[in-house]
Amino acid sequence: MATETQPDRTGLPEGVAPAGAVSMEELALAARNHGMPLEGLRYDLTPVGLHYLLIHFDIPHLDETAWALSVRGRVRRSLELTLEQVWSRPAVTLPVTMECAGNGRARLDPRPISQPWLHEAVGTAEWTGTPLAPILDEAGVLDDAVEVVFTGHDRGVQGDVEHHYERSLTVDEARRDDVLLAYAVNGQPLPPQHGYPLRLLVPGWYGMTHVKWLRAVTVVAEPFTGYQQVDSYRLRQSKEEPGDPVTRIRVRALMVPPGIPDFLTRRRVLTAGECLLEGRAWSGTAPVTQVEVSTDAGATWRPAELGQPLGRHAWAPWSYRWTAVPGDHVLCCRASDADGNTQPVDQPWNVEGMANNMVQRLPVRVDPPRR
Amino acid sequence: MATETQPDRTGLPEGVAPAGAVSMEELALAARNHGMPLEGLRYDLTPVGLHYLLIHFDIPHLDETAWALSVRGRVRRSLELTLEQVWSRPAVTLPVTMECAGNGRARLDPRPISQPWLHEAVGTAEWTGTPLAPILDEAGVLDDAVEVVFTGHDRGVQGDVEHHYERSLTVDEARRDDVLLAYAVNGQPLPPQHGYPLRLLVPGWYGMTHVKWLRAVTVVAEPFTGYQQVDSYRLRQSKEEPGDPVTRIRVRALMVPPGIPDFLTRRRVLTAGECLLEGRAWSGTAPVTQVEVSTDAGATWRPAELGQPLGRHAWAPWSYRWTAVPGDHVLCCRASDADGNTQPVDQPWNVEGMANNMVQRLPVRVDPPRR
Repeated sequence: MATETQPDRTGLPEGVAPAGAVSMEELALAARNHGMPLEGLRYDLTPVGLHYLLIHFDIPHLDETAWALSVRGRVRRSLELTLEQVWSRPAVTLPVTMECAGNGRARLDPRPISQPWLHEAVGTAEWTGTPLAPILDEAGVLDDAVEVVFTGHDRGVQGDVEHHYERSLTVDEARRDDVLLAYAVNGQPLPPQHGYPLRLLVPGWYGMTHVKWLRAVTVVAEPFTGYQQVDSYRLRQSKEEPGDPVTRIRVRALMVPPGIPDFLTRRRVLTAGECLLEGRAWSGTAPVTQVEVSTDAGATWRPAELGQPLGRHAWAPWSYRWTAVPGDHVLCCRASDADGNTQPVDQPWNVEGMANNMVQRLPVRVDPPRR
Repeated sequence: MATETQPDRTGLPEGVAPAGAVSMEELALAARNHGMPLEGLRYDLTPVGLHYLLIHFDIPHLDETAWALSVRGRVRRSLELTLEQVWSRPAVTLPVTMECAGNGRARLDPRPISQPWLHEAVGTAEWTGTPLAPILDEAGVLDDAVEVVFTGHDRGVQGDVEHHYERSLTVDEARRDDVLLAYAVNGQPLPPQHGYPLRLLVPGWYGMTHVKWLRAVTVVAEPFTGYQQVDSYRLRQSKEEPGDPVTRIRVRALMVPPGIPDFLTRRRVLTAGECLLEGRAWSGTAPVTQVEVSTDAGATWRPAELGQPLGRHAWAPWSYRWTAVPGDHVLCCRASDADGNTQPVDQPWNVEGMANNMVQRLPVRVDPPRR
């Protein structure tokens, strides 16, 4: 193999590349971690296999009969739960939109080097599991507890630190009644890639929170300082800052690309006339209250019709009737939520490319009607 | 957005790029079309959602109640089959390994520009459907028929040609008793991304043959000359040559990457000692007869233990006991089949990067045992 062509990184900080010219390492991540093609926005519930996946290390190969969940740490009595014991507890099913905190990263300029998502790291599924709070109550959380650490079976190296994937929540957040230990998705047992046999579900939070392939739930008396908590998933302008933690999903709308694509460039072509633009909108902070559409690259905005979501933490459908006239257009959509958040038109840049909810820009060419 | 960095293409033909420096257009394809992470080689049958997917255009949004399959052309009587009629016919279930003809393309140097697969465009599933031959018999193929054209609902532009995705087979190939119209995968209805409600299955052939979202089966008296038949999926050194058609899957073995990965670079680290190397091998031309492993970058080869496949057209498991000693190693595997085909060590380059079954090279670092 010849030496790879490298883009010019003069003047850019470590871990950041100019727009375009994706490296083979980024490509290898893109080949593993798949997104939801945006026509998948058509479904209320994303079919398994179209839902996005971000797998930091490898999918662990677990023996269900040997598997057990350890609940331990600052509790009155440790528990070891078999899968049968988890299944026999009260079950809750919730439709939840999940999005990778790195969604939109590859649209940033300069581009932080990591999994190079464009727009497609999202999906909505019905997750079934048992609430965590009663399990914590059974174990008896001690008075000095401040956080709960969730440890997966997946192990690897990131930032030169070898570790199991681990994330924490405050005790209060972990006790929310919609925080589940989930064992089924869309009515079926979790497939290996979604965390079989058991994963955490924290509706409203970005994907890194929903720890897959759970092996331990550990109550701790000090804030957790593992790699995935303090060295990654931070909003900051340089790696030297501690930054703020990435938490809840920022408001966003996306659009089903109208018309037909070119295979290679994905450029869209449609025929002039009535065109129903459709998509979904969601927010982890508050209900979506408005979606607007622009057909002139963001110069003017008009309200879209907003439908009802399947649940509090599921995306809402929206649609907009557009009379497409011949020519080149850039379609955009943006959502707002009840907390007063609106998507930015300019990029919300940070060194890891996290929580980028910049508005989608979709160039289309409209051809005259055929005679 | 700033102008994208472009690699130097001086002296390279159109449609080809130097190794590395993947374009944003290629990335957009990689984000849509997902591969099977290689740890998925562990499963006899690839779970839905880990099986590779190559979708040329968009996943069509089809109304099952309005769907029907048209069987037409050079036949005595045309048929219109509803989904219920297809389901009520005799059913066959076959385990079949499917691989994209472009698998390995992004490893080529220079790299043909298209979907940039590394190694992961493969999967094995149990497909259920009804044999095509009796349907052709019912329609009554006329004596002047030479080919059968399969048309999907997916439509788009490729090479400046707007078309539905279409491919043909000779009448003899189409009549093979294992050629199915498939409506289920791994015991479940086809998900949208695998061709719901009905797709073609031609065991042994590369993936482009298994037309998804079928709408018509047309018997023709002249060889089919559609874009996907004569302008693409050809083995040739320049776009000016007609080239040979891509047909059956070339012999290949792949390995589950041992040890643990680095998140960003995917470089593997393992601990010295006994290590079971495992993988799968397959060929569309003849049964796999041998898998060999090299732990010294292809300088020497040793036979692996080869297991039984689930069926004639499914991959076979293999394993090799390696005593890993500290240091850097390049692991390779290669398969041979009963027709005398063996994987090449040098790249089988062609202008579209098709049927590249060059041996996998997997660098690993072995650390001394921990004390």
